Amino acid sequence: MSAAVLSGKELSEAIRAETASEAAELAAAGIPPRLAVVIATADESSAWYVRSIARAAEKAGIVCDLVDLGPDAAAGTIRETLAELSGDPVVHGVILQTPLPGGAALEDLASAIAFEKDVDGASPLSLGRLAAGLPAFAPATAEAVVALLDHHAIELSGRHAAVVGRSTVVGKPAAHLLLDRNATVTVCHSRTADLAAVTSAADIVVAAVGRAGLITAEHVRPGAVVVDVGTNPTAEGGLVGDVDAGSVRGRAGALTPVPGGVGPVTTALLLRHTVRAAARTGGAAARVGREGSG
Amino acid sequence: MSAAVLSGKELSEAIRAETASEAAELAAAGIPPRLAVVIATADESSAWYVRSIARAAEKAGIVCDLVDLGPDAAAGTIRETLAELSGDPVVHGVILQTPLPGGAALEDLASAIAFEKDVDGASPLSLGRLAAGLPAFAPATAEAVVALLDHHAIELSGRHAAVVGRSTVVGKPAAHLLLDRNATVTVCHSRTADLAAVTSAADIVVAAVGRAGLITAEHVRPGAVVVDVGTNPTAEGGLVGDVDAGSVRGRAGALTPVPGGVGPVTTALLLRHTVRAAARTGGAAARVGREGSG
Repeated sequence: MSAAVLSGKELSEAIRAETASEAAELAAAGIPPRLAVVIATADESSAWYVRSIARAAEKAGIVCDLVDLGPDAAAGTIRETLAELSGDPVVHGVILQTPLPGGAALEDLASAIAFEKDVDGASPLSLGRLAAGLPAFAPATAEAVVALLDHHAIELSGRHAAVVGRSTVVGKPAAHLLLDRNATVTVCHSRTADLAAVTSAADIVVAAVGRAGLITAEHVRPGAVVVDVGTNPTAEGGLVGDVDAGSVRGRAGALTPVPGGVGPVTTALLLRHTVRAAARTGGAAARVGREGSG
Repeated sequence: MSAAVLSGKELSEAIRAETASEAAELAAAGIPPRLAVVIATADESSAWYVRSIARAAEKAGIVCDLVDLGPDAAAGTIRETLAELSGDPVVHGVILQTPLPGGAALEDLASAIAFEKDVDGASPLSLGRLAAGLPAFAPATAEAVVALLDHHAIELSGRHAAVVGRSTVVGKPAAHLLLDRNATVTVCHSRTADLAAVTSAADIVVAAVGRAGLITAEHVRPGAVVVDVGTNPTAEGGLVGDVDAGSVRGRAGALTPVPGGVGPVTTALLLRHTVRAAARTGGAAARVGREGSG
């Protein structure tokens, strides 16, 4: 028996096609959707990710501005840049790329992103509204976890999900989204006493730690669904997840691949959020974005 | 064997004494701490709670204004009142009492409370900052859970806590506070498939549902610590928790009483937050409140 592969390809293509069509409508209405990516790092995997967003945005008909402040940018400069972009009426979405220069915290700086333009749900206000069940853009990665499970018709209500990782960008918002869908949710982390005992009690395991191969067969109940959010660069220039797929494949009921699982859905949702944010600024385009914040 | 009683009496008295002394210093410096309680309900247990806050505030040297808008107040009126009080320099803390008139959501209305005066952590921004690990006032009830466990020297790090209830005012913020203290946290709720199986796997059970007697011996692992957040009025005019104490007492290692457990600590923390908020507005009183938001 081998775990079913929960690919993100089909879903991400569907979201991107829908987004491209909404973007074209908006552009025709005089509101070309525009995403600003603020960069303050020379990190290579970050640069790779930014290029892939920029390419995907272009294909979807979204203008993507890369605002590179350099790896030595001061926190104050980053904050001012985010505030300026938030105040610029032609910009609809603003994201701040990580890692950040020495000591700066994403949660703190992201407070400078206006709520309506916070398309990657990075600000504390977005997180709080998400947790409170009020409309907000969720962090795209966290939303991708739930969207991928939905796409593959995996029931969430009443099931027990273990989220491994408690970051503000993935673990915590994913926990809130799963709770909102009536899952019972356990959040585990580096200080969890017996990780395998906790995760193997769950129907669904979401691995979002950033440590290659952390989740092995012993962490997974036979037949459980495993979502791998990790994207860890290998020495050979490839990408591996937080799940040791070779070990887990024979035990899990279903597993998201890396690459090709959560990743492409994340990018697609980021673009969808940008278009939805643009739709809200223009009454002329009221027809687009009627489905809420995602 | 009978469970140890985790009383809130000693801790609440200590916090109230410290708060009274800080309030006196502030008053002497020309900044009498002031709390505004906005009421839009004729609910009796709410009225009882408000009176107890007002009495406790008075004893601690905090001015307490009851702003009663009546049970038919429109959401817009409540919002405007919260915004006005937020803008009033002599008011340091603002809380909105529940229940609210037909359909109004606390999370939504509480957005109108200025972050610095949100002494009961009711606004989405406070919740998001709490979840992101940034300074914020936590909802007093959620903070009281952790404060009471700390006071009784109960270890949290690496232990498994089950929070029963996912409200924005208690369950969710308590989960974040426990996570922040390195507990592994499971959030359960009305849709949890087998509640007793989930809670009896935990070292610490926090019951915050508002249903008298929901938690019985079968929900508790022998020796576990049980925190009862429930305050359910009885037909006889008394108060009972969410825990069936008679059933749980013989099995749990420790149990918080109702009344006399989380409740008095909650009130004391609300007063402490108000004094801390007042201390921050006055440079003259910088010595007070140096310990952060609590």
